[in-house]
Formats: sequence, C-alpha cells, structure tokens
Amino acid sequence: MERVCIFCRIVKGELPATKLYEDDLVLAFLDIAPINKGHCLVIPKGHHNSLTTVPAEQSARMMTVATQLAAALMRATDSDGFNLLLSNGTCAGQVVPHAHLHVIPRHAQDGVSLPSRSRPYDSDEEKEALVAEVRKRMISRTDP
Amino acid sequence: MERVCIFCRIVKGELPATKLYEDDLVLAFLDIAPINKGHCLVIPKGHHNSLTTVPAEQSARMMTVATQLAAALMRATDSDGFNLLLSNGTCAGQVVPHAHLHVIPRHAQDGVSLPSRSRPYDSDEEKEALVAEVRKRMISRTDP
Repeated sequence: MERVCIFCRIVKGELPATKLYEDDLVLAFLDIAPINKGHCLVIPKGHHNSLTTVPAEQSARMMTVATQLAAALMRATDSDGFNLLLSNGTCAGQVVPHAHLHVIPRHAQDGVSLPSRSRPYDSDEEKEALVAEVRKRMISRTDP
Repeated sequence: MERVCIFCRIVKGELPATKLYEDDLVLAFLDIAPINKGHCLVIPKGHHNSLTTVPAEQSARMMTVATQLAAALMRATDSDGFNLLLSNGTCAGQVVPHAHLHVIPRHAQDGVSLPSRSRPYDSDEEKEALVAEVRKRMISRTDP
C-alpha cells in the first residue's frame, strides 16, 4: 500500500507538497484543492487508511497540531474561525486512503455550507437501544 | 460563563443528556439534532468556547475518545464510515459556545453533503507568503 499511497509518497519526499509543519509523528501540508485559502491537512506519517487504526499517540498529535495550525492560520489569513473535518470511508467523502484531518479557515459569509439537517429517533426505546450497543462496543482506551 | 453554558450544565448533571462515555477529562453524549442516528458530541469537561484554549491533554483525549466512539458507532449502527467535525467560531457554524467535536456515522448515499469546492491561490507567491506567515505564527506545541 505504501508504495502507491500519494500521502506516503509525500511523507517520503517523493512527491511535492507545501509543508506547514512536521515532527516525528505527523506532517501538515496545504490541500491542493483548498475550500478556503490556508486549508491544510494533518496526517500521521505511518500509513493508515482509517483513523481507527492510527495509534492513539499519533491521533492525539494530529489533534494538537491541527489546533495549533488553526490558531496560526486564523492570524495568518485574518479569518474568524475554522473547521476541523475528518472523512473516514468512501461514503463519508474520503478520497485519499490515508487518514487525514482537514483544517479549514473560515470567514463570515464565505459560502461554505456544512450539513445541518436533523433526523430524530423514532422513539426513546430506539435511542436507548443504540446507546446500549455503543457502550458495549467501546473498546478500552489507550491514553496518548 | 459556566453558569449559563448548556454543555457545562450537562457536565454538572443539571441538564439531561444521553451519555455515551465519560472520564475525568471529557464527556460524550448524543446530539439532540442528529444528522444521522448515533451522531454524538465529545466535549472537554472544562469550559472553553474555542478549541484553541483547551489544554492539549484534553483536546488529545477528545480525539482518542471520538475515534473509539466512531469505531463503536460503526458497529452499532451498521454504518460504513464517519465524519469528525469541529466548528470553531460563529462563522464556522459553532452554535453552542463550548468546544465540541461531532462524531457522525455515515452510510452510502445518505444524502449528507460536505463542502468540496476548490478556491485555488492566485499565484505561487501568494501561497508561499501565506505559508511563511503560518510557520511564523505556529506557537510551540505542548505534547499531550
């Protein structure tokens, strides 16, 4: 997988990218199709299609770096806010099969729309049953 | 601020919520206006309007818990993927002024649309100037 993954090739320096930040665990670079200027991606250096297999230390680092990048981007782009977005799975909009967290600077009336519909539960019983299933399936957490 | 923040009131048990997970740093509960069933929020227990002021240990925990909830939700809701979404600032869609990370189970053709436009840079010079500004403004990172 690593040989053909474009993000792995960026990590290795085999493909160009405009890098913003790099450390031992993560790399951040500009998205080539920015929703707003400054839109960038934070990725774990190791190859993981899904965030669910990224070691906790690395996913935690993705979050702390994304947060600091967001703060720096707001100042650098004079923006008023930001979105963090991660799409996991084709049905969720993931295109490159290497986990990546989007950091998107936002401005008032910038025309970016996020989903806002509400699909309520059919009953309290349905909701409670779902919650019971989720709680049962929460695996033990490993602290970063 | 804490006295009127509805998420702080949920943390304190003063307002009801359908809780999925809780530890010393974070709380996860169902969104009352779910985009898809199982849609939940992960919040730091301390009050922070913006993610940028949440201590790194807590934001890291938000991420690891969100990831494990996402994995559990996929199994519990038979979904094929998920989105993580954080909206910071009114212009970015933040409604409740207490940082929160959305975990949204996704299904094929579920009708949820995410922004996908591309707003390219006017020139390489503009891009490089932006990158220089961001790098300059990245504050030192505190590991979780």
